[in-house]
Amino acid sequence: MAITLFTAPTPDGYKISIALEELGLAYQVQPLDLAKGEQKSAAFLRLNPNGKVPAIVDDGFGVMESGAILVWLAEKTGQLLPADPRARSEALQWLMLQVGGLGPMMGQANLFGHYWPEKLPAVQARYLAEVRRLLAILDARLADRPFLAGEYSIADIAHFCWARTAGWTGVDIAPFPHLTAWIDRVAARPAVQRGLKVPDVSPVKEGGDNSDFIARTRKLLGLGPREA
Amino acid sequence: MAITLFTAPTPDGYKISIALEELGLAYQVQPLDLAKGEQKSAAFLRLNPNGKVPAIVDDGFGVMESGAILVWLAEKTGQLLPADPRARSEALQWLMLQVGGLGPMMGQANLFGHYWPEKLPAVQARYLAEVRRLLAILDARLADRPFLAGEYSIADIAHFCWARTAGWTGVDIAPFPHLTAWIDRVAARPAVQRGLKVPDVSPVKEGGDNSDFIARTRKLLGLGPREA
Repeated sequence: MAITLFTAPTPDGYKISIALEELGLAYQVQPLDLAKGEQKSAAFLRLNPNGKVPAIVDDGFGVMESGAILVWLAEKTGQLLPADPRARSEALQWLMLQVGGLGPMMGQANLFGHYWPEKLPAVQARYLAEVRRLLAILDARLADRPFLAGEYSIADIAHFCWARTAGWTGVDIAPFPHLTAWIDRVAARPAVQRGLKVPDVSPVKEGGDNSDFIARTRKLLGLGPREA
Repeated sequence: MAITLFTAPTPDGYKISIALEELGLAYQVQPLDLAKGEQKSAAFLRLNPNGKVPAIVDDGFGVMESGAILVWLAEKTGQLLPADPRARSEALQWLMLQVGGLGPMMGQANLFGHYWPEKLPAVQARYLAEVRRLLAILDARLADRPFLAGEYSIADIAHFCWARTAGWTGVDIAPFPHLTAWIDRVAARPAVQRGLKVPDVSPVKEGGDNSDFIARTRKLLGLGPREA
């Protein structure tokens, strides 16, 4: 098979398994065990010097960074990204807002909400406010259209993979009805349901006991135990 | 003139003034006074609901997000981004690493290094370590090539605008000789020198007295004074 996907059950990883499923491309999966630090192995760092999943090798060509992989796959197939320059740019604008905005801000909110050894309520509150601000932007955008930029695109896939985990971050999306309906709409797609199982279903159980996952992630981040 | 640039003297703003200068495109500048909150005005939010500079209007078409504006300008002109699909993807991969990596991490390092009311040394140290890790990746990448991805591209412009401010963030780049030489190489370009004056030279004076700038930024971020 031409494409190998190096991934793990994370929001950024699911972006690519979902896109591959949507596009009907043949691929093989190489799961990386993040707890074992496989994403920092010399072999993987040659593919992605940033040491993060996902990455792909497509016919010998390595692609890192989930946003760039989405663009690569969309351009390779002529799907999930409009051809018209303005419509295409709109999708890329919303993609960039995920890559540089929602993703990093949810990441920091999770860091201080779940993993950082000290409880820093003011810091966590700041990141939660930023996440809510960004989700409100998506909600407003989706008030009068079914997808973020014209037809369903890589911008929807990128935001969906993070926005669906807002509960884990500690943000209630009930005040965002258009966002909620869009999450349901994207989640109902068969390709999305398949992609969310590659390489495994997320280990985070919303509302369940995540102490093992949290302990593993703290270790991965080089952080000590959290204060009581 | 066809293009209006809404900007301020920030790393993300300079990305676009530099690109416009490199491309020789005619543009007019609409500076926004961030301290006055002009980036949150109703008029600007219609152009960019995220309320941040830069944004452009090109012949009536609005583009937000600096990464997406760079791609728009490169594709419009067929410059600063290779035509070959693999070379093009490499440039987009390094661009994404700036948008989702170096930019947000330097932003957080600046937040806790300069603006946050409490001093949180462990938090700041974490972000500084992340910035160093990312700058080391750029340094290694530049060890055997003059630019990040083939010819000089929008990936170089994006990283340059942030990497050149590492001193302000509190990271010494002397241990990164290839990065340092690349910064000098990019900084020597006449278009870059012109772009770095649009709309104004940065108000941050490295090694100088930045107390006014810091006070203004704290207010902008809704943060109180910093503990002694």
